[in-house]
Order: sequence, then C-alpha cells, then structure tokens
Amino acid sequence: MNTVLITDVTLRDGLQIVPRWVSTPDKLRIAHALPHCGVRKIELTSFTSPKAIPSLADADELASLTARNPQVCYTALVPNLRGAQRALAAKMDELNFVFSASEAHNQANLRMTIAQSLAQLEQVISAAGGTPVNVSLSTAFGCPFTGAVAPAHVIALMQEVQRMGASSISLCDTTGMGSPADVERLTQAALSLYGEQGVTGHFHDTRGLALANAWAAYREGGRRFDAALAGLGGCPYAPGASGNASLEDMAHMFQISGVNTGLNLEALQPLAEEIAALTQEPIQSRLHKAGPAYALKVCQ
Amino acid sequence: MNTVLITDVTLRDGLQIVPRWVSTPDKLRIAHALPHCGVRKIELTSFTSPKAIPSLADADELASLTARNPQVCYTALVPNLRGAQRALAAKMDELNFVFSASEAHNQANLRMTIAQSLAQLEQVISAAGGTPVNVSLSTAFGCPFTGAVAPAHVIALMQEVQRMGASSISLCDTTGMGSPADVERLTQAALSLYGEQGVTGHFHDTRGLALANAWAAYREGGRRFDAALAGLGGCPYAPGASGNASLEDMAHMFQISGVNTGLNLEALQPLAEEIAALTQEPIQSRLHKAGPAYALKVCQ
Repeated sequence: MNTVLITDVTLRDGLQIVPRWVSTPDKLRIAHALPHCGVRKIELTSFTSPKAIPSLADADELASLTARNPQVCYTALVPNLRGAQRALAAKMDELNFVFSASEAHNQANLRMTIAQSLAQLEQVISAAGGTPVNVSLSTAFGCPFTGAVAPAHVIALMQEVQRMGASSISLCDTTGMGSPADVERLTQAALSLYGEQGVTGHFHDTRGLALANAWAAYREGGRRFDAALAGLGGCPYAPGASGNASLEDMAHMFQISGVNTGLNLEALQPLAEEIAALTQEPIQSRLHKAGPAYALKVCQ
Repeated sequence: MNTVLITDVTLRDGLQIVPRWVSTPDKLRIAHALPHCGVRKIELTSFTSPKAIPSLADADELASLTARNPQVCYTALVPNLRGAQRALAAKMDELNFVFSASEAHNQANLRMTIAQSLAQLEQVISAAGGTPVNVSLSTAFGCPFTGAVAPAHVIALMQEVQRMGASSISLCDTTGMGSPADVERLTQAALSLYGEQGVTGHFHDTRGLALANAWAAYREGGRRFDAALAGLGGCPYAPGASGNASLEDMAHMFQISGVNTGLNLEALQPLAEEIAALTQEPIQSRLHKAGPAYALKVCQ
C-alpha cells in the first residue's frame, strides 16, 4: 500500500487572507488537535510582516506556545532572511521559503524581483545551518497577472534553488490555474531533481481541479501534498473562489483509492467545522455534505 | 492533440430529480442552443413513467419538437421495452438502456431484479433494429444501500451485455462513490471490451471527485464523458450534495490540458446560468466564480 503525507496548511495558507481575526488560543487549539487526527506535518504560520499579513501577526507567539508533538514536523513560511531568523528562533523544524515563478506575482506578493528573492534564499540557507529549507515555488502553474508560466522556466528555478542547497520543493498552484497535464509534467521534472520525499504538490481548488491535480501528481509518483481543513483559504485575485485543497476531501480520495494517509477522517471533520466557525468562512469540503463514500445510507 | 466527446446530460440526469417543473419550450431552448456551443451528443430525456420521473413527463413531446442537428447524436434513457418503443417512435439516434450493478439499487430505482432488467435489455436490443443500444451501468462504483460493488461483478455484467448486443457501455458513478483508482481499473476493463468509442465515464461530484475521476479515466484511454450544465442534478440519497460533473468545469479541465473538446466555454456559461435560473438550483460549476484559468486578472 502506498502512503502519502498531507501537510496541514490551515493555520498558514488557510488563514492568510481571512479577514476575521482568529485568536492565538484558538489557533493553538487547532495546532494541538491536528496531531490527534494523524497529521504529521503542520505549516504553523508565516514569519512575515504583520502589516502584510495581519491574520498571522502572532507568528512568534503561536510558535513558542505550540506544544511540539515529536512525531510531527512543524514548518513555517518565510519570505526573507528576517523571517528565517524569526523561524529559527522559534525552533521550527523546517523553513518554507516562498517566492514566485512569475516576476509580476513576486513583485505583488513580496515586493521583490525573483533575483532579490534568490539572494534572500542564499542568506536563508546559510543562516539555516542544519535546518532543512523547502522552497515553495508560487504560481508554478500560471500567474493571475501575466498568464502562462513556461515549464522550462519553472524547471530552471527548481534546478537553481537545488544548487543553492534547498532540500525540497513545493510546486504551488497559487491561484488554481494548473491543469492535470501541467501537473504531470512539472511533477515528473521535480521528482527527477528532488526525489519522492522532496516534492510537495500545493494545489488550490479555484477551478475545481485541486483533487484532479493531486491525483495526477500521485500517478506520476508524487507522495506529498498540502491541504487545509474545510478547504479554507482563497485568492485575493479570484474573489468568491474557494481556496486550498480540502484536507478532508483529499484524505478521503486517497483512502478510498487504497492509499494510506494516516489521517482519521472522523476526527478531522469536527476540526474543519471549528475553523469554519472561527473564521465564519464556508466549509468547502464536499464530505461535510455527503459524508464519506463508504457510509451507507438507509434505503428511502 | 487528443479529443474527448462530452455528452450533455442536463435535460435528463440534470433535471431528473429537480422538483421545479421546467416547461417543454424552456427545455427545447436548451436543446437547440447546445449544438451552437459545440455539443455533439445530447441525452435529451428519459422514456420512463411520468409517475416515476415527473420532471421528464414530456419526453415524447420534447423529442418530437426538437429540431435535430445533423452533427449531433440524440440519445435518451430507457429502462425497459416500453421506453425503448417510445424512444424508437421518437426517432432517437441511440437508446441508453439503464440498469444497476447493485440489486438493491436496481430494485429501488427500477423495481426490477438485475435478471429482469437483462431480460428487458434482450427485448430492447431486438426491437432496436439498427439503432445502437448503449448500456448505462448504474452504481458501477458503489451502491448507496449496500456499499462496495465488486469490480469482477461489474466486468461480468459488461461482458454479458456485450454478448447480448450492446454497442457501448457507460460506467456510472451514480452517487459519487468511486475513487480514481476504481475508475482506472474499470475503465481499463471496459476499454478492452468496447474500445475507445464504446466507453463513457459518467461521474457525479457528490464527494468532489468527478473531475479527478474523469482525468483518471482519460489517462487510461477513456475519451467519452457525461456532464451537465452547472453541475445540475443530484442524488436523492445524498441531499445537498452536488450532482453531475459540471460540463463547463470538465470542458475547461480538458481544454487547459491541451485536449480538444470542441466546446465553446463562453457560450456554455450563459446556458448554465439559464438552466440554474429555470430550476432555481445553485450553479455548482467553479468557472462561474473564478472564470477560466487563462482569463487574466488586472493587478490590484
């Protein structure tokens, strides 16, 4: 039986653009509950400017208050050296350095050119010491401002950051523009560079393709994915569209396909309800309406 | 470039359990508009008892009033000989004979045993003369009453109906219980029996897997799919869950994957809005919220 590792990104990408403030104790309750649902990797927060992402302004406090489960890898997004220093001080197990494959998106999101981001990455890797640095390559499947992103450009960036010392890569479909065919192509390339444990698929469900893309990546050999409780998240450039792949729906897809996720679906669902109530965002997960496929209905 | 044929099933499976009556002239407007969007196969209605499916009670009238486009194949669901006779009288291009792989579901849905359905199929094929008979095998990926349906049983039924003279087969995930792995397995088996032009994937999005399943089938060589405008439809045993694969979202997925659908997405969207307004059902299609992936957003 194959196994996939699904990283929960609820507390970072899920909350990132949610307007309603979720308190640090509420975030802590989610962070502490996730390992009990079988989650083995958690993206806890983002060490960035509180002005840029007010909803994650408590990054340092949240990280210091989170009781670490020894079975869980705690990662956090960092956009620059300053963020990496904070993440290292907060004893994160991994730094998740983010930049965009698209100049326009990198500029809009991080106020840097790609070259400037790469210069930051060099310093981050140097500062990280033994802490692994994952690189999250945003807009790898398309940019909301400039459209298509050439796969050859994405592959060149993956090669470059590997030369610089990145341990692993996340292919991020930041605004849900990627097709399953695109995912197959870039996943193959990423796996050939970083291997099975070094490639994560980060798919958004903006156009309903998060699970199709996850399956396409899986069939190419991808074994690591990001997802958020309730499908929380969104894209400021596609209002009303749903956000991250739903953790519950993705776990369900893999489980009914005979792929081990280690996740407890029944335990995840109340947690998804909790984050939806805290954020007052809708539950995007289909499981909440239909229940899992193997729950038998009484004949009507 | 590969090509897929997506059959529009809005006027049959889409409307089947919708409580609000859609008038024959309104249905006709949809039927006449679909070919202008590039649709080349339409499931127009179901020739069944008006008591069983009141929303399709105008089957004979709708079929006789539909101006046939010579480029389009018009098919209709038939559950028995009586339905087939009506469909033949209405000059349908194909009869789509339906029964379930699950005894419990066949009984609930058609008030027949599988053996009785097969006896009806024999008479339907005999009455059909030169008109091709497709077999839609419901609950091929799971039954809402009895759970898992053994793939070997489904394959045996596919073989049996082929021996009886069925031209082609639709693998129907009637209540959205199938996984991509299930779809791969049965699509392979179906293709080996019926060939590329003889296998249709009919997927419901109850648990968010319609597009993942369609892609899984495509990668195995499946080239024919069913879908409904706005993702219309539903399952009486999974209230609130969405229904058929969305025609717009499926066409979008294939098109951005470089697969030809012949469909005009821009023309389909107002039609989806029209059927949603007529039925007062929600538009499930993600494209209506997010727009296609290649529509560029202005930088904010």
